[in-house]
Amino acid sequence: MSFNTFGRVFRFTTWGESHGPAIGAVVDGCPPGIALSETDIQPWLDRRRPGTSRFTTQRREPDQVRILSGTFEGRTTGTPISLMIDNVDQRSKDYSDLAQAYRPGHADYAYDAKYGFRDHRGGGRSSARETASRVAAGAVARLVISGVRIRAWVEAIGGDAIDPAAFDDAQIDATPFFCPDPAAAARWEALVDAARKAGSSLGAVVACEAIGVPAGWGAPLYAKLDAELAAACMGINAVKGVEIGDGFAAAANSGEGNADAMRPGNDGPIFTTNHAGGIAGGIATGQPIRLRVAFKPTSSILTPVETVSPTGDAATIATKGRHDPCVGIRGVPVVEAMVALVLADQALLHRAQCGTGGGTGVAHGR
Amino acid sequence: MSFNTFGRVFRFTTWGESHGPAIGAVVDGCPPGIALSETDIQPWLDRRRPGTSRFTTQRREPDQVRILSGTFEGRTTGTPISLMIDNVDQRSKDYSDLAQAYRPGHADYAYDAKYGFRDHRGGGRSSARETASRVAAGAVARLVISGVRIRAWVEAIGGDAIDPAAFDDAQIDATPFFCPDPAAAARWEALVDAARKAGSSLGAVVACEAIGVPAGWGAPLYAKLDAELAAACMGINAVKGVEIGDGFAAAANSGEGNADAMRPGNDGPIFTTNHAGGIAGGIATGQPIRLRVAFKPTSSILTPVETVSPTGDAATIATKGRHDPCVGIRGVPVVEAMVALVLADQALLHRAQCGTGGGTGVAHGR
Amino acid sequence: MSFNTFGRVFRFTTWGESHGPAIGAVVDGCPPGIALSETDIQPWLDRRRPGTSRFTTQRREPDQVRILSGTFEGRTTGTPISLMIDNVDQRSKDYSDLAQAYRPGHADYAYDAKYGFRDHRGGGRSSARETASRVAAGAVARLVISGVRIRAWVEAIGGDAIDPAAFDDAQIDATPFFCPDPAAAARWEALVDAARKAGSSLGAVVACEAIGVPAGWGAPLYAKLDAELAAACMGINAVKGVEIGDGFAAAANSGEGNADAMRPGNDGPIFTTNHAGGIAGGIATGQPIRLRVAFKPTSSILTPVETVSPTGDAATIATKGRHDPCVGIRGVPVVEAMVALVLADQALLHRAQCGTGGGTGVAHGR
Amino acid sequence: MSFNTFGRVFRFTTWGESHGPAIGAVVDGCPPGIALSETDIQPWLDRRRPGTSRFTTQRREPDQVRILSGTFEGRTTGTPISLMIDNVDQRSKDYSDLAQAYRPGHADYAYDAKYGFRDHRGGGRSSARETASRVAAGAVARLVISGVRIRAWVEAIGGDAIDPAAFDDAQIDATPFFCPDPAAAARWEALVDAARKAGSSLGAVVACEAIGVPAGWGAPLYAKLDAELAAACMGINAVKGVEIGDGFAAAANSGEGNADAMRPGNDGPIFTTNHAGGIAGGIATGQPIRLRVAFKPTSSILTPVETVSPTGDAATIATKGRHDPCVGIRGVPVVEAMVALVLADQALLHRAQCGTGGGTGVAHGR
Repeated sequence: MSFNTFGRVFRFTTWGESHGPAIGAVVDGCPPGIALSETDIQPWLDRRRPGTSRFTTQRREPDQVRILSGTFEGRTTGTPISLMIDNVDQRSKDYSDLAQAYRPGHADYAYDAKYGFRDHRGGGRSSARETASRVAAGAVARLVISGVRIRAWVEAIGGDAIDPAAFDDAQIDATPFFCPDPAAAARWEALVDAARKAGSSLGAVVACEAIGVPAGWGAPLYAKLDAELAAACMGINAVKGVEIGDGFAAAANSGEGNADAMRPGNDGPIFTTNHAGGIAGGIATGQPIRLRVAFKPTSSILTPVETVSPTGDAATIATKGRHDPCVGIRGVPVVEAMVALVLADQALLHRAQCGTGGGTGVAHGR
Repeated sequence: MSFNTFGRVFRFTTWGESHGPAIGAVVDGCPPGIALSETDIQPWLDRRRPGTSRFTTQRREPDQVRILSGTFEGRTTGTPISLMIDNVDQRSKDYSDLAQAYRPGHADYAYDAKYGFRDHRGGGRSSARETASRVAAGAVARLVISGVRIRAWVEAIGGDAIDPAAFDDAQIDATPFFCPDPAAAARWEALVDAARKAGSSLGAVVACEAIGVPAGWGAPLYAKLDAELAAACMGINAVKGVEIGDGFAAAANSGEGNADAMRPGNDGPIFTTNHAGGIAGGIATGQPIRLRVAFKPTSSILTPVETVSPTGDAATIATKGRHDPCVGIRGVPVVEAMVALVLADQALLHRAQCGTGGGTGVAHGR
Repeated sequence: MSFNTFGRVFRFTTWGESHGPAIGAVVDGCPPGIALSETDIQPWLDRRRPGTSRFTTQRREPDQVRILSGTFEGRTTGTPISLMIDNVDQRSKDYSDLAQAYRPGHADYAYDAKYGFRDHRGGGRSSARETASRVAAGAVARLVISGVRIRAWVEAIGGDAIDPAAFDDAQIDATPFFCPDPAAAARWEALVDAARKAGSSLGAVVACEAIGVPAGWGAPLYAKLDAELAAACMGINAVKGVEIGDGFAAAANSGEGNADAMRPGNDGPIFTTNHAGGIAGGIATGQPIRLRVAFKPTSSILTPVETVSPTGDAATIATKGRHDPCVGIRGVPVVEAMVALVLADQALLHRAQCGTGGGTGVAHGR
Repeated sequence: MSFNTFGRVFRFTTWGESHGPAIGAVVDGCPPGIALSETDIQPWLDRRRPGTSRFTTQRREPDQVRILSGTFEGRTTGTPISLMIDNVDQRSKDYSDLAQAYRPGHADYAYDAKYGFRDHRGGGRSSARETASRVAAGAVARLVISGVRIRAWVEAIGGDAIDPAAFDDAQIDATPFFCPDPAAAARWEALVDAARKAGSSLGAVVACEAIGVPAGWGAPLYAKLDAELAAACMGINAVKGVEIGDGFAAAANSGEGNADAMRPGNDGPIFTTNHAGGIAGGIATGQPIRLRVAFKPTSSILTPVETVSPTGDAATIATKGRHDPCVGIRGVPVVEAMVALVLADQALLHRAQCGTGGGTGVAHGR
């Protein structure tokens, strides 16, 4: 099946292909009365926009969002918010050879196996271009949970990691890599340039933190906060792994090494550590939510790779066109958006069942 | 909110607390006409059952499942299948001190923060005992996708990993650790014994493989096969990380190093490698599905840990009782069950949209 | 498919066949902290119980409900509430001939057409016995919306209607017909007795009113309060029609005749009439919710009817056994339950999106 | 909450207000490979379009639909189909007084009670203009179930019904009333003209029939085919009642009078009557599906009605503007669309659970 809707009560549905006239998202279930205009959304799209440096795809898309419904006199009305972004720089000719051979690592073969045929232009629906819709929807979600601060950054590219001791929050938006460590950013410049020039690509790890999530958000047992975050992030193009808190490192630890001890505090317990990443039993503990996401290297590379054609013949493909040498970089705003969308949904779900305990800063209308 | 239902068309709902009279699952959407009796379910429960070795909890539960509805003359009717497992060995007195202090790493504090109070006996609803219901439901799912073989194993305990070269499928069920490498199993015996005697616990990595999933199963974009698997596994008690295929290793790789090249084959392309873990664009490629799951060390340890009481006072807790020294071990049948449940749902979803292409071995009634 | 779950955030799942060991419901999403024990549920089941007069089936079922999970120390915990009712008086032999011929008006043929075979004993899953599970779940829903008063009654049997001028609320539970008009009840006694003795059966109209629903509950556009109520009631066994407010009479009216004029009031507008049945645009207006439900005559009759066998041969069937001569009578508590279940769900949905405006009397935990 | 998505696996989401720039629908879950272009959708929209006769609103909307995604080279790809219809003739000034007083019978007060404020221009989201999106989505649904023929007609206006004996299928699209009885159409012309000139409006009954639905479609117990149809139709603007088959007339009947006897046939049983309207136990029997829908008279009338303002003051309102004197007339294509949407969903759900038995004519991709 095709399931292009995400969320339970705060929901969004995306549509659109890489080379159609436009892409978009319909956000449903948003609380009424929130101030919302295009200027609340555009800055987040600009962070994800291609072509802002030589380290991202050179496709030129202004990614201007329009709000077509769901607001009145500058405020949300509680009805569906339709967001649309025109595709401007399609250049379908760039992709004509994609009809002739499956690109390894892409969804080309899988879509054909599922649907019998596909829109091959630029990956069609499976293109990472769809993530612009998520970022637009995520901008609305942020307004619903205005008491929560969400920020993500690149933690490693091609296996070269930042130095946690050098973490500088202010650097994240100052580099073309969303990199909080200036020394790492300098190294990555050479690393990504080399990959780009070699017609190769690199994987990356993106980390994300959400501060201000009140203890209690989350939904046992089959909409656990960590499970929903895992699905939200694993569903981003090119993602192959998700960790909450210590993640795989916890699997190598002992019970006492992994325990997050508690001490009395003025506003709930104070945790001495945060191995858990802010979630226990699928429910937020009030600590910062912490997660890490693994992006594989961009599958579209100039280096020729052995493949087959839709008719089953042997072929070789070198994917020309305008691709990100490291797709994880532009994954940063997408991870943030997906985290915001999950949290907004969980905030409303919590309020549904447990009443006014939705936490400071959760929007409501009356 | 509380969401105790998993799945979209093949669904299951679980209920029950660790120390109530029983636990259970209601499986809905199952195709009709499948031969099903308790003997199809019990062996999977027996693999998960506690008390089978000194490396698991000593709680004695026969975990006998009863089918209360949904079958007639030994076959599924297409109506809900109610599965019930009585709780036999509750011993509530073991847990009376859990009312007095939050166990670090457990859901105790989070449940109180969410709901205002909780059933503290043995963790109540957040106890891993609930996973027996998943295993029972998963046994039904296996029958729906009888052409798929799912097997999981423990790949590492406390950071000590198996030697992939020594992988022996036949060993998995021969050791108390679901360990495919006899030498590792021998080492783990000492390792887990030492942790148990020290009042400590150990984390583990569980790997899982599903062979025979036809190319095409999966559901772009917000029910991607990998995203659903990630949610299904991250939602298991104590899980903190999920990888599909190479997972985080892909993030340190290059595009050409990570490419799964294809060659012509008689029945679809032959892939020369499987970095992707059998999924591209959220859709199965026909290769084996491969994933890895990180279990944290059991949070219940004898070693005293600093904590607080529900009234906010400082406390120290040493969790007595009968706990698994390494909860990842009994996670093996649970991971298999969750993978089976996701695949059965996706098989039916694929058939819904794309017609007869549901793959060989998918049950249907007429 | 089989969809045995109802609701969006306050949900219930039912299971069980007429002649299996038991039936049950799992209620999920209930707010925590509500006082709940079997004594809160049993009285509603007793109202629906068969065998209480000669005007209902003579099957003897005590319909004792047990709560198997979801409460602790007498209060709901926010986790799934498993309700189970044992089947006591199955007498499968009564139904052995149902395997040989399809009962006209029953689901026998349709289930076979769908699933390829069916549990024919007493109608299996399609038996009205399943409605006991709804009544049990509905009793929990009532506690969630304790500020709302829901009551239903029989308005007509076999075309013989009550006199609205004689409406006496106190009579509803005093007659075996849930009839608010004593004169009508007296007539119905003769009417139903005659039908019973003639081996016939009669249809009925059930009316229901919910008082205290605050203006604002409801969910445009595809979970409108009236649409959800229509689905909830049309899904009850034997129901063939649903009206909100004036229903079909509105279709014969003029705009000014159907207008519910408003005047200023101290607590929202005062409506001079209630043609709309308390719902406009799918949202409650604060007036009483009013609906009417048409029950067809019981299909199981002693009068022989022409039919076919599962192998397609001509047959004649006279349905012996213990059937309600007028299934609409026992429909009264079922309609009330379904209305309660819809309203509880909508109350929580409203609170999710719009914050504290969930209305007085909606349960919450903290 | 706001739920603007309908359906389970074949789903659509609508967005847009009466006086925004556009309205639209996103159709998700459509089988791949179906030939689809705007010319498959436009004729259905043209049937619903306003301004085609003096008996409908004089708002001039071309209602030109554009397909923005989900097709490639003229066929559906299995990805979301985004349909957009520009609003051309908004004339917001017509509606400026709607901000000052609640229109009785409209959703004005209810939306304010729910959301705290509303887009008052032309009813905003609650305007019947939204039904154009349903008709567009329904046109896609028809292609999915191409073996089913769905047609609706007006059966009565203001209590004046057609003569069933005069039913002429060919007349339905020949009159401005979708009326199958020419004599009734002639009477209605005078009737509706009189109402229009008097500043009044009239209610109507719309009947609908779906022929070719195979026995077996439907989903017990909480997505019963009749329950889903009831919700789908009750959710249409101005609808107050829904009947399946004989509906309320069945409630006045006896068991033998209501029985649909069966005789052996070459392709399943032959039913001698169709009191049930083609559905038993929530599952199609293979007979024609028959239902009736009650539309109230248009609430917007020139006759002044007593009301209140948003600030709670007494007011009188005479709704000027361009309104349908009988909104049920244009309800005909909307009822057809909703029936098509329910059936397409149920067709795919049936195929999901029961395999190839989806019935002749259900689209699939491979």
